[in-house]
Amino acid sequence: MGEVDGRAIVEVRSSIIPETVNREFRLRRRPVGRIAPDDFELVRAPVPKAGPGEALVRNLYLSLDPTNRIWVEDVEQYMPPVQLGEVMRGSGLGQVVESNDPALPPGTIVNGLLGWQDYAVLGGTRGVMAQAVPAGLPVPLPTLLGALGVTGVTAYFGLLDIGQPKAGETVVVSAAAGATGSVVGQIARIKGCRVVGIAGGPEKCGWITRELGFDAAVDYKAADWRDRLRAATPAGVDLDFENVGGEIMDEVMGRMNLGGRVVLCGMISGYNEGKPMHGRFDTILMKRLRVQGFIVIDYLPRFPEAIMQLAQWMAEGKLKHRDTIVDGLERAPEALNLLFDGGNVGKLIVKIADPPLKL
Amino acid sequence: MGEVDGRAIVEVRSSIIPETVNREFRLRRRPVGRIAPDDFELVRAPVPKAGPGEALVRNLYLSLDPTNRIWVEDVEQYMPPVQLGEVMRGSGLGQVVESNDPALPPGTIVNGLLGWQDYAVLGGTRGVMAQAVPAGLPVPLPTLLGALGVTGVTAYFGLLDIGQPKAGETVVVSAAAGATGSVVGQIARIKGCRVVGIAGGPEKCGWITRELGFDAAVDYKAADWRDRLRAATPAGVDLDFENVGGEIMDEVMGRMNLGGRVVLCGMISGYNEGKPMHGRFDTILMKRLRVQGFIVIDYLPRFPEAIMQLAQWMAEGKLKHRDTIVDGLERAPEALNLLFDGGNVGKLIVKIADPPLKL
Repeated sequence: MGEVDGRAIVEVRSSIIPETVNREFRLRRRPVGRIAPDDFELVRAPVPKAGPGEALVRNLYLSLDPTNRIWVEDVEQYMPPVQLGEVMRGSGLGQVVESNDPALPPGTIVNGLLGWQDYAVLGGTRGVMAQAVPAGLPVPLPTLLGALGVTGVTAYFGLLDIGQPKAGETVVVSAAAGATGSVVGQIARIKGCRVVGIAGGPEKCGWITRELGFDAAVDYKAADWRDRLRAATPAGVDLDFENVGGEIMDEVMGRMNLGGRVVLCGMISGYNEGKPMHGRFDTILMKRLRVQGFIVIDYLPRFPEAIMQLAQWMAEGKLKHRDTIVDGLERAPEALNLLFDGGNVGKLIVKIADPPLKL
Repeated sequence: MGEVDGRAIVEVRSSIIPETVNREFRLRRRPVGRIAPDDFELVRAPVPKAGPGEALVRNLYLSLDPTNRIWVEDVEQYMPPVQLGEVMRGSGLGQVVESNDPALPPGTIVNGLLGWQDYAVLGGTRGVMAQAVPAGLPVPLPTLLGALGVTGVTAYFGLLDIGQPKAGETVVVSAAAGATGSVVGQIARIKGCRVVGIAGGPEKCGWITRELGFDAAVDYKAADWRDRLRAATPAGVDLDFENVGGEIMDEVMGRMNLGGRVVLCGMISGYNEGKPMHGRFDTILMKRLRVQGFIVIDYLPRFPEAIMQLAQWMAEGKLKHRDTIVDGLERAPEALNLLFDGGNVGKLIVKIADPPLKL
């Protein structure tokens, strides 16, 4: 650590770190079914210090995603499950408040796996993965977790790269008023597809058709939702962007045309079950479907391409979004259940703090 | 009908049609579970006559395929199910014995959906789908139903077009000693893959490794077949050519590498069950697999390309095959069960008759 740097940092720390306590949600036990508040333990630890090459980040916004529920399950998955006693993994936005990394000066906004806690340490050997966000973006910070963040990028590559939609095709999106689904549907509209969204309740269905421009919405809470799906897809379904799984997926797959594609982005209906999730392989065979699983981290090197295009569509008014913001880190566990209860519209975010340094 | 043609045909008919009775297997009831002999009725009808534009065919060899079991089930499928009272659908080879179609002179060998019967009528409005086979091919006729027929073409396009194998990858084939699987494995070897076949019993396993050149065989009848599969795929599985479904498919999918592909060609383990066939969608998601259903009739225009390549490999000694031939049309129903009992090696064929006209 350079001396001058060291002094500067100490001065900064003393003036801008608002708390001396870091609240950390540690995984106490593996949830069975829905997340229960005491599946996590809220530990109060000293705010960590940035060691050589490290940066200390004040966490500002926490992204809540269906995949969080997978991370706490002890099953084979695309990253190691969160271990008992570990701070809960979560992606979020934060601001560097103390730094021994010249590439991350204090004030920098970073986006990464900051965890369910007030402070995170970046870099070095113990640090989490995070990237600096370009300064001066003309969007509110939470948007960088949603429509212009990992969620938007998921929609972009999942639909375009895996799904390969063609103009005139019918695209069905489940969890259509959710963070990913709402972006998927709008991109499919931009590409000239007929877009049918499946969502729960008249408010969400109204939002995606009236504000987002979906061609039709199917309220899966209506008793006759299967009939409504059939009526909304008179030419069958060419592409299913699947976020839900279970009986909704089965029904959509039953409507699919020969040679259709299923972009398997998620299956939230099964995440609380803790059981293997199945689907109709006979339908895949008879209809010669292509079902392809997809996790956005495989596209990490291409994130900028997606974000630039999404930002342009947003600037042109073609891409709208909504965020559901829950105030206070302490509410993260209960807030996560909103995803499974259909309690959010658009991106679900926990606000942890305001930026302590001027943006 | 031209008069000269008409006379000529009458003369031919009188001399070469061996029987006056056409034996037809008609579907009496929908099978429950295994095929039972009296699921079909053996009806004796007069040999039909070729009407205007039609040709009468003496059926010689009948191809028995797992998909026959699907055809008699009243479920959504890629062709209409065989209706009760209809002659059982089946592909086969026959010889034209009477013709009002100048393109199909008597003596012509044809390949098509000739049905479970002694005679079939081609062309016109009631005729079945069939194509003439080039004369003078240097292979026995049954080969045109197996390795150089629909079965070989299924292996060819399924593996190469859908599966896209790369040299050095590990390919697993189930029902590997069956008609399709045995060809799939050999093509994968030609393409430089490590090939592991799953088959039932030491004889089949020995055949595919010692005679066909598979790198390894896993006997699924062995109690420790899961361990053997693991040992045979030390680098995981990149491509699963799936013919069986069920727990064998689940186990192979559990061995798959990120980004692996499942060519879903068939799931014979489930065809006698009459229930929806499921598979692990959570595995598709976590491992970002591509699972693609495939039915060879979609490749009809490209059949010649496949057959030429397969014939060349066969001439070069790179593609070997074996046929299991059951003698007598009357044995077709019981013979079909051999497929489900693992009673055949290579292509399963029923011999109906010898060609009545000189080839």
